[in-house]
Amino acid sequence: MSLTTPALAGKLSGLQSSAIRDLLKLTARAEVISLAGGLPDAALMPRERIAAAAEEALRDPSVLQYTESPGWPGLREVLAARESARIGRAVPVEDVFVTHGSQQALSLLSEVLLDPGALVIVEDPAYVGALQVFRAAGARIVAVPLDGDGMRLDLLEDLLAAGERPAVVHTVSNFHNPGGVTLSPARRQRLAELSEAHGFWVIEDDPYGELWFDRPAPAPVASYSPQVIRLSSVSKILAPSLRVGWMTAPDRVCRAVELLKQGADLCGSALTHRIAATLLADTDWLTAHITTVRTTYATRARALVTATRAAFGDRIHCTDATGGMFVWADFTDGTDTATLLPAALDAGVAYVPGAAFAVSDAYRHSMRMCFTTADEATLTEAITRLSPAVG
Amino acid sequence: MSLTTPALAGKLSGLQSSAIRDLLKLTARAEVISLAGGLPDAALMPRERIAAAAEEALRDPSVLQYTESPGWPGLREVLAARESARIGRAVPVEDVFVTHGSQQALSLLSEVLLDPGALVIVEDPAYVGALQVFRAAGARIVAVPLDGDGMRLDLLEDLLAAGERPAVVHTVSNFHNPGGVTLSPARRQRLAELSEAHGFWVIEDDPYGELWFDRPAPAPVASYSPQVIRLSSVSKILAPSLRVGWMTAPDRVCRAVELLKQGADLCGSALTHRIAATLLADTDWLTAHITTVRTTYATRARALVTATRAAFGDRIHCTDATGGMFVWADFTDGTDTATLLPAALDAGVAYVPGAAFAVSDAYRHSMRMCFTTADEATLTEAITRLSPAVG
Repeated sequence: MSLTTPALAGKLSGLQSSAIRDLLKLTARAEVISLAGGLPDAALMPRERIAAAAEEALRDPSVLQYTESPGWPGLREVLAARESARIGRAVPVEDVFVTHGSQQALSLLSEVLLDPGALVIVEDPAYVGALQVFRAAGARIVAVPLDGDGMRLDLLEDLLAAGERPAVVHTVSNFHNPGGVTLSPARRQRLAELSEAHGFWVIEDDPYGELWFDRPAPAPVASYSPQVIRLSSVSKILAPSLRVGWMTAPDRVCRAVELLKQGADLCGSALTHRIAATLLADTDWLTAHITTVRTTYATRARALVTATRAAFGDRIHCTDATGGMFVWADFTDGTDTATLLPAALDAGVAYVPGAAFAVSDAYRHSMRMCFTTADEATLTEAITRLSPAVG
Repeated sequence: MSLTTPALAGKLSGLQSSAIRDLLKLTARAEVISLAGGLPDAALMPRERIAAAAEEALRDPSVLQYTESPGWPGLREVLAARESARIGRAVPVEDVFVTHGSQQALSLLSEVLLDPGALVIVEDPAYVGALQVFRAAGARIVAVPLDGDGMRLDLLEDLLAAGERPAVVHTVSNFHNPGGVTLSPARRQRLAELSEAHGFWVIEDDPYGELWFDRPAPAPVASYSPQVIRLSSVSKILAPSLRVGWMTAPDRVCRAVELLKQGADLCGSALTHRIAATLLADTDWLTAHITTVRTTYATRARALVTATRAAFGDRIHCTDATGGMFVWADFTDGTDTATLLPAALDAGVAYVPGAAFAVSDAYRHSMRMCFTTADEATLTEAITRLSPAVG
């Protein structure tokens, strides 16, 4: 008796347990300061508000029952209002679909939009969770590098001019994971134009947009075209364990995803959907809460960037950390971050080598550092430990 | 811009929005007594216990964070103990995998175990949610009819003797949905033997096993072989909105499912997993709670069966309703249940025609009636309304 080899081998070739995940096991030792994680800070999550919302929700027996596959209707209404304000046009409730975190939206969309061999354009370095599902769908993946303004649209245009016909272009538009950068307004508009001109879907993957430090994120790519599929989530602003992500997309995409969702897991949890709706609808409280999260992260980010630049000077180039959860740093002195890692762990600090996010470029001299879960002194100490390991 | 036609068409051919789902929309009218649903009774769900467990869980900030892909470890421990007792051998925690309802286990298993064209044996009439995912995986589906002792294993043996080599045999072993019957102990043992002899996986899908009315369900098929993959859920004994299902399976199956789960939705909710763990671990309370649910359902089931037999006599054959949520009835007088339905709706009663669950046989004279959400008087009234519609 065996697992059916071809099917499984095919799936798993796209779904290798990520290098990040394996690394995290090594960094769980208490004496290691880990910049390798990618988790929001649980201490900043609104535990008491969630408890109060849960108590209120549980006064109604219907919150325990199965709910509709596209999500508990009250949550979809709150999200439609929220996305309408964000995108700058009325988003009908039918175009809002709640998923089990935005990872499920990526997974279901890849089934709906991609045939084996279809071309998917991703960013380089890439969000690993998206790569996984696109690879599992049998897509052909071509990476376009990031620069300080996000995805290099000139290179995307070169690909299109050369006759490439992507089915999907995936972008983490705000405060990129792992790249730290944000797609510029001019490029957002151009990407939307290209998608309409060439008939590809843009998946605008935006879990970090609310976590801005100096100024709000630019208007979404979706604000330039109703054909853009936009994903977001409460995981980074409220709590991952609500397992509430969502997608705004044209109705025919939502209906196709709905049929797949029925087969995938029937429906989400009316209980956690209702908790999320209560907190998202309380906009005054929510604004204050998110302000606390992002100003805390901003302070941590600045401490990490300052310590990094002070320790390495010209030998490193790192992003400014204008939002989100990550700083991306490139050693300019030839330091190989994968080779460095064992010495770094010995010195008591962990990060993720750039290679873990590489698609075309090897990112051998790069690393991702997460600043969300440690205070400023700890982040500074992490760099103090890393510096002699680099030598 | 269009959805990629071949991929989507392929997926959707296996995932037509089910006849049941469409029908439920028609039966939502308040004046219709619906026996067409398939929901547990929300009024019997332990709302106060869930609220207390939620409050307790939310004292710990870690309950808001991402959790492990195979499930919150505390829940897996409780489930391992529970399944060990049920199956009659020690089930290690590694062999327990928590899914987003047992529908997700079916979906992920179909990806792990099935290549396109692989043979899957299902029961006829079939659980529609399983059919959906097997069809979506491109499986070839052959149905084996049920009789009063569950799946006709003699016919399965005929298929094996004829050279058929199934990858998977799927059975709803206890209080079948929709067929109402339970697989006999002798057939359970034989099915396990056949699976080992012929190298196919058995998926024992058991959401209803605890809802027995007269005597406990027989020992699981999994008790006869460690190769049997067993699925269960809290949806029918606690609440669907916890979205907690689970699978017990050999470690290599669990690890393959784990990789797919990471791509599908990363992880479940530590909050709802912890609530489920608290309630499942309180075995004295749980036993009393389940006793209340099953004795209430038993009373309702008997009222429905009694009314049906009184109204139709020899013109109908219906199951005894020894557990679960459904009665399956066959008209012996030639009544076509699909043709009857509009008249039944006009008379103020709804059921699901057998055709909705048909794989090989048409089940044109059959219907499924759910007895969980109405009291005895209402169930009796439903049959009083149905009787003149049949004529």
